[in-house]
Amino acid sequence: MSDRELVVGVAGATGAVGREMLRILEEREFPASQVRALASSRSAGTKLPFKDGEIVVEEMTEDSFQDIQLALFSAGGSSSREFAPIAAKEGCVVVDNSSAWRMDPEVPLVVPEVNSEALYSHNNIIANPNCSTIQMVAALKPLHDKGTITRVVVSTYQAVSGSGQKAVDELQNQVRSLFNMQDVECNVYPYQIAFNCLPQIGDFTENDYSEEEMKMVNETRKIMDESIKVSATTIRVPVFYGHSEAVNVETKEKISASDARVILSEAPGIQVLDNPREKIYPLAIQATGEDDIYVGRIREDTSIENGLDMWVVADNIRKGAALNTVQIAEEILDKGLLSK
Amino acid sequence: MSDRELVVGVAGATGAVGREMLRILEEREFPASQVRALASSRSAGTKLPFKDGEIVVEEMTEDSFQDIQLALFSAGGSSSREFAPIAAKEGCVVVDNSSAWRMDPEVPLVVPEVNSEALYSHNNIIANPNCSTIQMVAALKPLHDKGTITRVVVSTYQAVSGSGQKAVDELQNQVRSLFNMQDVECNVYPYQIAFNCLPQIGDFTENDYSEEEMKMVNETRKIMDESIKVSATTIRVPVFYGHSEAVNVETKEKISASDARVILSEAPGIQVLDNPREKIYPLAIQATGEDDIYVGRIREDTSIENGLDMWVVADNIRKGAALNTVQIAEEILDKGLLSK
Repeated sequence: MSDRELVVGVAGATGAVGREMLRILEEREFPASQVRALASSRSAGTKLPFKDGEIVVEEMTEDSFQDIQLALFSAGGSSSREFAPIAAKEGCVVVDNSSAWRMDPEVPLVVPEVNSEALYSHNNIIANPNCSTIQMVAALKPLHDKGTITRVVVSTYQAVSGSGQKAVDELQNQVRSLFNMQDVECNVYPYQIAFNCLPQIGDFTENDYSEEEMKMVNETRKIMDESIKVSATTIRVPVFYGHSEAVNVETKEKISASDARVILSEAPGIQVLDNPREKIYPLAIQATGEDDIYVGRIREDTSIENGLDMWVVADNIRKGAALNTVQIAEEILDKGLLSK
Repeated sequence: MSDRELVVGVAGATGAVGREMLRILEEREFPASQVRALASSRSAGTKLPFKDGEIVVEEMTEDSFQDIQLALFSAGGSSSREFAPIAAKEGCVVVDNSSAWRMDPEVPLVVPEVNSEALYSHNNIIANPNCSTIQMVAALKPLHDKGTITRVVVSTYQAVSGSGQKAVDELQNQVRSLFNMQDVECNVYPYQIAFNCLPQIGDFTENDYSEEEMKMVNETRKIMDESIKVSATTIRVPVFYGHSEAVNVETKEKISASDARVILSEAPGIQVLDNPREKIYPLAIQATGEDDIYVGRIREDTSIENGLDMWVVADNIRKGAALNTVQIAEEILDKGLLSK
């Protein structure tokens, strides 16, 4: 198949992640002959900038995927559940950014730096992991390969952009209201997020962990190794862009902090920023707009024999969503894994 | 000794914590016949509101403590190192809020709900623990008594007020600048704290943990049990008041989440706010101005045999500093432990 023939669809193109997908396809010169933008009927007709021109958004219907070989979905869970199987049946390979298919045993869940080999077994649907999982497993995998991780305790500091543009606006509006001595309005979040930390991301499951926390537990195991035990606390913080994570790792074999620094600095997609005495460590505001995952504050945990602590930061909209989806699509092309 | 005779000094009275100490002494009707405010020569003459009148700040000198039986210090480490021994030699009992004396083996380090018995061995200097330690150990102690804690992994979400009024102003000014498209000024913190998370509190120690992290490790062991292993990651977040903490606990004997809720709800100084499905959990903005330590998101950690996760929130200026200091002073009176 030559470049000329490849038609790529972006489903949910008008959302924050969908728009970022278009920007990243353009930036990375993704070898598509045509990029089509799909969305709900409400957004049909919207014009989105792409390369030197514009793409007119089409309504996503059952017939949309006949001429599309590869579709990047970021249209929400219910839309994915409806349209991904239709696209798949048409021979279109779907890379889905929602949580709808992630834990389906038939669906590979992929971070290209970690488990791109899982793509070989795809049945036309591939899932993109949750943002907070992606950056963590990318930092864990090289350590797992070296010393076999047995347990992870992670606490997250997640940006509001993970809840979409409305949440970005809500934080902004709340700050303005507070600075003008006005009452704060809460629509996206149940409580004020401005100058506060919310210990809830998603609904709660039966074991009193939140859905976001269980995503980190289950997705990490599916992507890396079913034997890894994970305990997660996921917290929303008043940051616009960039998720930060405090990750405590226990390994079978000892990995020194200096070894971990070397291993991680050689790992794909990772940048080690770790010289705390010179005030060099990862920051959410510096990770914004960047492709890499930043790791720092690497130190040996003195509370157990073989433990490491580290601080992992990434742009949750790019590597946490749009970029990882496009990288999966690139792997599909590289490996010749299209279906039509 | 009758109430009439008790002269109490507040050293560092013009700082954020010193002012809060005066308010709390007044609120709790602390049985002092006289409260004197001490500070550096720069602040001498300042008038501070107290009860129906005012207190004029006196310069703290070597002679200040002759007529004071009980002094609450929040004047910074170097001032504590200089004046606490002078006061102690005069027979004045010092309750010190700085880090200067905390790890001195001769100095009790006290959270009244946890280890007030340590006060009996005082030599006129008693240390108030670090804010992030106080709220954690108060929540850990009842669990330790029940099931013997072996290891704690904690990540903190600390408010800027822990760095003083200048840091509160800095966050406010940075937000204003950003909303007006102006450059951000960083004086208190090395990087922008507005809409960001800073993985540094205090300087760094030889093992690459920060001073704040090692305070949580060492103070927890001194206050509760030397055999408890602690790993801490302390993070500054853009919150004005109220420290939050994600605490993962491992115990020798199993404690169920429901048992933990009962144990903690019966513990002094603790309020359990834990019904996540009804969106009931502790929040920094709700803890502000309150005396209690709030615990919620209590759940059994499935990654180990005997593990619990919880979310612990308290007002870092009150329970984390001024209130705990006054509570220690109350215990000294109750137990008859003044020296003159």
